[in-house]
Amino acid sequence: MVTEPAPDNAPDETPAARHPRTPDSSRRSERSRRAIYDAALALVAEIGYARTTIEGIAARAGVGKQTIYRWWPSKADVLLEAFLDLGEQAARSAGQEGTAVPDTGDLAADLKAVLRATVDELCDPAFEAPSRALAAEGVVDEQLGREFVTKLLEPSLRLYADRLRAAQAAGQVRPDVDPRIALELFVSPLAQRWLQRTAPISYEYTDTLVDYALHGLAPRA
Amino acid sequence: MVTEPAPDNAPDETPAARHPRTPDSSRRSERSRRAIYDAALALVAEIGYARTTIEGIAARAGVGKQTIYRWWPSKADVLLEAFLDLGEQAARSAGQEGTAVPDTGDLAADLKAVLRATVDELCDPAFEAPSRALAAEGVVDEQLGREFVTKLLEPSLRLYADRLRAAQAAGQVRPDVDPRIALELFVSPLAQRWLQRTAPISYEYTDTLVDYALHGLAPRA
Repeated sequence: MVTEPAPDNAPDETPAARHPRTPDSSRRSERSRRAIYDAALALVAEIGYARTTIEGIAARAGVGKQTIYRWWPSKADVLLEAFLDLGEQAARSAGQEGTAVPDTGDLAADLKAVLRATVDELCDPAFEAPSRALAAEGVVDEQLGREFVTKLLEPSLRLYADRLRAAQAAGQVRPDVDPRIALELFVSPLAQRWLQRTAPISYEYTDTLVDYALHGLAPRA
Repeated sequence: MVTEPAPDNAPDETPAARHPRTPDSSRRSERSRRAIYDAALALVAEIGYARTTIEGIAARAGVGKQTIYRWWPSKADVLLEAFLDLGEQAARSAGQEGTAVPDTGDLAADLKAVLRATVDELCDPAFEAPSRALAAEGVVDEQLGREFVTKLLEPSLRLYADRLRAAQAAGQVRPDVDPRIALELFVSPLAQRWLQRTAPISYEYTDTLVDYALHGLAPRA
C-alpha cells in the first residue's frame, strides 16, 4: 500500500489537538492513544472485527472506555485511525515521508519500486492479521467496507492514478487510457493473491505485472 | 466465474452414487440433497460462515443431522459442494454445458464474453451473499481459504490459462508471457472491485480491462 500525506484536516482530528493539554497531559494522552491503537489492532487480529468491542480495547489498553468514547465515536473509527497510524509509522520507518509514487521519469521502475514495498508490507506480520480481519469484515459488511476503502485504499490508488497521468503527459502512457482503471492491472492481481491466497507473491511477480500491463499481452508489431 | 466440467471423480462423490438406492429412495435423497444445499447457502448468507453449523443446516433443511454427516465430513465440505452445484446450475441455465472459455479465434471477444457472464453472476443475488460470506471467511481462515480457492477458483482460472495458451499457439499472445499471471490482468481487477467494492462493475469496465491487458498501457510504436 502506498502511504499518502495526512489529509488536510488531520491536525484537528488528533486527540491531542481536540483536547489541548499541558505538556505532561499531552504525553499521557499520546501514551494512551498508542496503547489504544495497539490494543485495537491486536484484538481485531486475534478475535476478528465482529467480536472486538470498545470495552475489550479499553481493558487491553489499560484505559477507561470513556477515554475511547471521548476521542472516537465508534469501534470502526478507532480501527480506521489505528490503521492510518500504522501506515504512517511504516512509511516513516521506510524513510518515505509524506510520499507519492516516485517520478524518476522511468514509469516501469517507479511502479515496480512501490509494488515491491507493498509486497514487503503485505508480508509484515504487524499488518497481516489486522488487515485481513478488517478486509474480511469489509467483504460482508458493505458500510464498513466502503468506509475503509474510501479512507484507506482509495487514497493510495489516487497516487497511482496521478503517476499514470504524469506518464500520459510525458507520452509514456496512451492518452485514451483511463488511469483509474489502468492502475488495477498491477494493483488488483497483487491484492487478490494476498486476499485470497491464489498464488505466492514476490518482487519478481509484481515486476512481471508491471511489464505485462505496460506492454500488453499481444505481440507488438 | 467460469464453470468447468465436473472433476473426474465426481460420479463417485455424489450422495446418490455413494448410496445406491431404489428409484424412490434416490428421489428422496435428491430432494434432501437439494434442501441441504439450499439451507447451507441461505444460512451462510444470513449469519456468516463461523455461526453456520451442521445442526443449523439440518434443522433448516428438515433432515436429521446424521443425514448430513453420512454424506459430508464437515461444514466446509457441504458448502463446497453446495457452491459447486450452484455454479453448475447457473451454467446450465445460461446454456453453457461443460464449458471452457470459448475459442472463436477472436481472443478479445472470447475473454469479454466470459467476463460479461461473470459480471452477471457476481450481481446475481443467489450468488452474492453466500459467496461473500465464504470469501470473507477465506481471507482470515487460511485452510478454508486455500481449500475453496483450490476447488472453486483455480479450476476457472485454468480455463483462462488454457485459452491464453491457445492464443499463444495462434500468435496472438507473446510466447514469453506466463498465462497464469497474464490472466490476472483482467480477472483480478473484477474480483477486487467485487470483493472490496472499490468501484462499480459493468460490461464496459470488463471490456476495457481486456483491451488494456491485450494492448498494454504504453503507446504502440
